[in-house]
Amino acid sequence: MQTLSEYISLIEKQIRQIDYPSEPDGLYAPVKYVLDGGGKRIRPVLTLATCDALGCSPETALSQALGIEMFHNFTLLHDDVMDHADMRRGRPTVHIRWDERTAILSGDAMLTMSSVIMGRNTTPEQYRKVMDVYQKTAMKVYEGQQYDMDFENRRDVSVDDYINMIRLKTAVLLGCACALGGIMAGADPQSCDAMYAYGERLGLAFQLRDDYLDTYGDPIVFGKEIGGDILNDKKTWLSITALAEDQSGIMADELTRPSEPHEKIERVRALYDSLGLPLRCQQLIDSYVDAAISMLDNVSMSPAARNFFIRLAEESRSRSH
Amino acid sequence: MQTLSEYISLIEKQIRQIDYPSEPDGLYAPVKYVLDGGGKRIRPVLTLATCDALGCSPETALSQALGIEMFHNFTLLHDDVMDHADMRRGRPTVHIRWDERTAILSGDAMLTMSSVIMGRNTTPEQYRKVMDVYQKTAMKVYEGQQYDMDFENRRDVSVDDYINMIRLKTAVLLGCACALGGIMAGADPQSCDAMYAYGERLGLAFQLRDDYLDTYGDPIVFGKEIGGDILNDKKTWLSITALAEDQSGIMADELTRPSEPHEKIERVRALYDSLGLPLRCQQLIDSYVDAAISMLDNVSMSPAARNFFIRLAEESRSRSH
Repeated sequence: MQTLSEYISLIEKQIRQIDYPSEPDGLYAPVKYVLDGGGKRIRPVLTLATCDALGCSPETALSQALGIEMFHNFTLLHDDVMDHADMRRGRPTVHIRWDERTAILSGDAMLTMSSVIMGRNTTPEQYRKVMDVYQKTAMKVYEGQQYDMDFENRRDVSVDDYINMIRLKTAVLLGCACALGGIMAGADPQSCDAMYAYGERLGLAFQLRDDYLDTYGDPIVFGKEIGGDILNDKKTWLSITALAEDQSGIMADELTRPSEPHEKIERVRALYDSLGLPLRCQQLIDSYVDAAISMLDNVSMSPAARNFFIRLAEESRSRSH
Repeated sequence: MQTLSEYISLIEKQIRQIDYPSEPDGLYAPVKYVLDGGGKRIRPVLTLATCDALGCSPETALSQALGIEMFHNFTLLHDDVMDHADMRRGRPTVHIRWDERTAILSGDAMLTMSSVIMGRNTTPEQYRKVMDVYQKTAMKVYEGQQYDMDFENRRDVSVDDYINMIRLKTAVLLGCACALGGIMAGADPQSCDAMYAYGERLGLAFQLRDDYLDTYGDPIVFGKEIGGDILNDKKTWLSITALAEDQSGIMADELTRPSEPHEKIERVRALYDSLGLPLRCQQLIDSYVDAAISMLDNVSMSPAARNFFIRLAEESRSRSH
């Protein structure tokens, strides 16, 4: 096994080597802009590490790692248009830097490019398996985004609804990233499925921790302002649970009346605290981290490989950025 | 060979049988809305007819025919968002009927569904070939749309630039539709390439005839108002040629000053007439129709099949809707 930073180096090098057509610049420049914008590269790392852990060199799955990172960045690009988000990773989003139709069209190009890249360096048998898991996952990601948008206008969203939404919108793509590594390593379907399940549970922990940090993070370390979810009345595990359990009516009240931003964040956070939500949210995160790690029991891999995936999961338990 | 209307029936039946997931409705209802909206179905007809002509039953290529129609409708959906078009085929566009983000996300889903459908009922060898030609063509379609948008802000667009743009944006997809039918029939690469070339030339004639009808069509028969391209100062073969050849300065003047719509259409059309453009445009259309038909000499097919493709090309010479 290699280290996390070695896998990231492999990916970054692969991203730098993408050979974009020179024309039309308006189509390809935004694609390069988005991919060069950084990010954790967690999905391609999962692909390379799974391939490595299941017995092939990580380079074997480099195309699939790049394909999944391209797809992920496509979803960010289009989501930012849909959510009217102006900034991403400290830079203006594509529809701000260029315009909206450029963002739509470049995103479309990225989606097709993901498919193209995903299919590279595969045997016919691998090609079909790679495309099947990738396409099924992509459809789930769209469904998750649709539910996320639907939730904005609903007051009856349950915790189960929410968990299912983030499973679709975020978690399954981490599962897919792992499965792709398994397929490229030529692993048996059971091992691929178990690694998919590991990635999916890791993804749930990851998203819940993200929600937690949006309310309880250190803005300097987290890298963005705290309280955005509260200000936007966003459905999260915290807000849904608070709305369901709050007897005082504070939470329902906050969702209807306009208020000064800083005060609103303080009031809602105080309510969350009074309901013991920070601890309970962390316990939920922990349960998904534990579930992810337990999936590794179904896969035969070296102690070093197992250790890599355990550490990755442990870090998402307590990460602060 | 079957008749045009028999191929269309096959397609329509296939479209009706698409099994959309019931949830989330916000994602799948617009996909069904767009596909049920009609249209000429020319691309899937080309796929089925080519498969039939090259020796396999048209049903062999039904998935690829549906896939290409799904892709085409995805491009219409996203183009309408980019162009802020309110109506399509006599009905409100998706971003009007629902909203813009629904249109973006449903389009994304359609693009992935195109890939999924395209790969159905293929051997491993066919699968790779199908995906290769489809993905390469899709990238060209995006490039064409980008050039089309770029042209809006350029005054130096040449006729060659324009022909290359419509080749990418429109014509190659008709070529691809033919090639897919050839691949599914198990035809040799030369025959597939020749049918691609036939479709591409047919597509050029088709688009030029569309531009012609936008200025010279009968609004009742054509099904939409005449003069839209002129009012929007759209780059077409007519307007580019007029701008290049007009010594009077009328055309350059029309592009800068605001004017009453009906008068503007009349003035520009009078200029086109004075330059002899209607006839010359029709001659250009004729040359592409002739070129398309000559491509059939490179493919071995029955007289009935050859006749089918010749009639299709002849009709695009003089179609009025």
